[in-house]
Amino acid sequence: MTLAERWLLPDGVKEVLPPQAQQVESARRRLLNLYDSWGYELVMTPLVEHLDSLLVGVGRDLELNTFKVTDQLTGRMLGVRADITQQVARIDANRLSYQGPVRFCYCSTVLHTLPANPLASRNPLQVGAELFGHSGVASDAEIISLMVETLNAMQVNHELSLDLGHVGIYRGLIGGAALSADQEAEYFELLQRKDLPEIAYFLEQSDLTDAVKRYLAVLPTLHGGREVLQQARDCFADVDDSIIEALDYLDALAAQISARYPQLDLYFDLSELRGYNYHTGVVFAAYVPAFGQAVAKGGRYDEVGRDFGRARPATGFSADLKTLVELSVANENLARKTVLVPVTDDSAALDAVAELRAQGERVVQLLDEAVVEDAQSFTHQLVQQDGAWVLESL
Amino acid sequence: MTLAERWLLPDGVKEVLPPQAQQVESARRRLLNLYDSWGYELVMTPLVEHLDSLLVGVGRDLELNTFKVTDQLTGRMLGVRADITQQVARIDANRLSYQGPVRFCYCSTVLHTLPANPLASRNPLQVGAELFGHSGVASDAEIISLMVETLNAMQVNHELSLDLGHVGIYRGLIGGAALSADQEAEYFELLQRKDLPEIAYFLEQSDLTDAVKRYLAVLPTLHGGREVLQQARDCFADVDDSIIEALDYLDALAAQISARYPQLDLYFDLSELRGYNYHTGVVFAAYVPAFGQAVAKGGRYDEVGRDFGRARPATGFSADLKTLVELSVANENLARKTVLVPVTDDSAALDAVAELRAQGERVVQLLDEAVVEDAQSFTHQLVQQDGAWVLESL
Repeated sequence: MTLAERWLLPDGVKEVLPPQAQQVESARRRLLNLYDSWGYELVMTPLVEHLDSLLVGVGRDLELNTFKVTDQLTGRMLGVRADITQQVARIDANRLSYQGPVRFCYCSTVLHTLPANPLASRNPLQVGAELFGHSGVASDAEIISLMVETLNAMQVNHELSLDLGHVGIYRGLIGGAALSADQEAEYFELLQRKDLPEIAYFLEQSDLTDAVKRYLAVLPTLHGGREVLQQARDCFADVDDSIIEALDYLDALAAQISARYPQLDLYFDLSELRGYNYHTGVVFAAYVPAFGQAVAKGGRYDEVGRDFGRARPATGFSADLKTLVELSVANENLARKTVLVPVTDDSAALDAVAELRAQGERVVQLLDEAVVEDAQSFTHQLVQQDGAWVLESL
Repeated sequence: MTLAERWLLPDGVKEVLPPQAQQVESARRRLLNLYDSWGYELVMTPLVEHLDSLLVGVGRDLELNTFKVTDQLTGRMLGVRADITQQVARIDANRLSYQGPVRFCYCSTVLHTLPANPLASRNPLQVGAELFGHSGVASDAEIISLMVETLNAMQVNHELSLDLGHVGIYRGLIGGAALSADQEAEYFELLQRKDLPEIAYFLEQSDLTDAVKRYLAVLPTLHGGREVLQQARDCFADVDDSIIEALDYLDALAAQISARYPQLDLYFDLSELRGYNYHTGVVFAAYVPAFGQAVAKGGRYDEVGRDFGRARPATGFSADLKTLVELSVANENLARKTVLVPVTDDSAALDAVAELRAQGERVVQLLDEAVVEDAQSFTHQLVQQDGAWVLESL
């Protein structure tokens, strides 16, 4: 390994240097304070767990995305967390025995074997909140509101738009469509790409009934403003009651969100199937024009606790804090003193230094007079005048 | 895997649940603010790096303690960080080009393949500070002072004691002793255990000169108060100048530390060889009676940047923040309101909630009237009286 290679980080692995690290830390505090004020309790989940615990019920995507190592104590497989939601569900199901609604938040690094896209980080700093023990519009509205408040607090809210979907619509259509497993897999794959010509060809070639062909063809076109919900109602009125329930649910949720955030641009996409194996109800994602991917996303996942022995309703969202900081227009200018002080044993000087530091000022020892300390730009120095230590501007 | 096993964490892997997680977060903020006020810049190092970068010059202990995974993008070996010091040295050497002294701090989780002892955590939350670019007592004194301030800030300072050693003493003795590689390995191993009878037997059987036997026998007995430094001077006066320099260095450092912290109990151990492959000068560790291991430790490691192309003087310390919180006698009682509010779209109520939250109070929606929300103990509720929303004590 050459010298030059030695300090190269793996592709997609990012570090945060000064002064950006201080901005990330400041954002972390701001968001955790926000979640705390909404009643969300902080949890710090472990970096590794038994692979079986980490991956129950989450589907193959997360499994492929999880680094695996062998536990030298037991020989069992461990996984490095690639997501935190599942860990929080385990904590809700087994470690704490709350009966009513309970709220958790977190902010920790996760690790992905492969980046989600060529520019994505493989070590995002995942920040998020989860609400367990309540099923219904009120808890989804609370989580979406907190997601919006997160983006507001980070000042990435210029032209924010919110995408809403509901996996129950696809599930209801497929439930009655009598597709073979192969057919369902092919349709699912085409739907995710919204490949309308291929979908038309697939349906034409298939042995499905005309009714099924009709509504499988219309599903990928159902995206846009709130009028989409009415279109879907018209199309799917006779298919399955669960679809109408899902549409009503989306309607009620959208009404609450619009009432709270009238400026927020709502967009409906009824064939959005992100996390389909995992989610059980609404799915949502926030977008800003400056960023190609969702800046925050989440959904309802009522079944996740079942594998831990306690299936509780659950809804939550998460984001990469480092991405939020990069997108933030907040410009924190800490107008504080940065004071240079000579190395000294003089107790009056040490007292003056301790007091300045306690006041939140930064005081740095001048260790080496021969070199310019270029890491900091100093505003003041502490000097002795007539026996007393005083601050002098630089 | 049975249900009961599914939520068991791997041995030695710890999670932090409410309300302890909030205490750890609060300690994190307190310490990072402290380091900031001393001029230490926060860095967030990556969770994984190329194994070669992570392990240059750190010795076999850390290599064995590092989980290794294969990078699916390149097939190269990656390591999950088991220590952060090395990563910060890489950053100092290559990412930033400061010429003078520069200070960094960090607070992140590391992962160990095996616990340091049967009760130790395999996922400690490593907090620490490193000072690069200055060689001499002033920077070691600054780092030790900051370590003491860390323990003071965490209120674990009851009967704090500080162990001081200097790897240059052993190095100076061995340099002139003409031991074979096998002999040195055996002596090193016995010395670490301070096994005086075995050391006596080993020396007796050996072909070493009487002078060498004499000083290799006396080294493990040189521990205790500051008088140990004078004893060592008497014993090793004729051996090597570097030993006398090391003793003078320890003396000068102890004088500075004692002047700043007269209450601090100083203990010298001249055969302390923790991190011998890694350290190049003083080594130090802080102990409290309630805890069997060092609560914080560090030392000088001037050579570490060499493998990254820039050998700079370096000194630093680190600790496990979760251990510090467990040992802390600080009892944070947040005397704030915890307010229950009904789910409502009333804009006056939403405004009242937003204002309370902005003031730092916790306001929680009552999602389900049928169940007691036992996760929180509420102090107030927001109720509508004569058209206005007012706080009512519970």
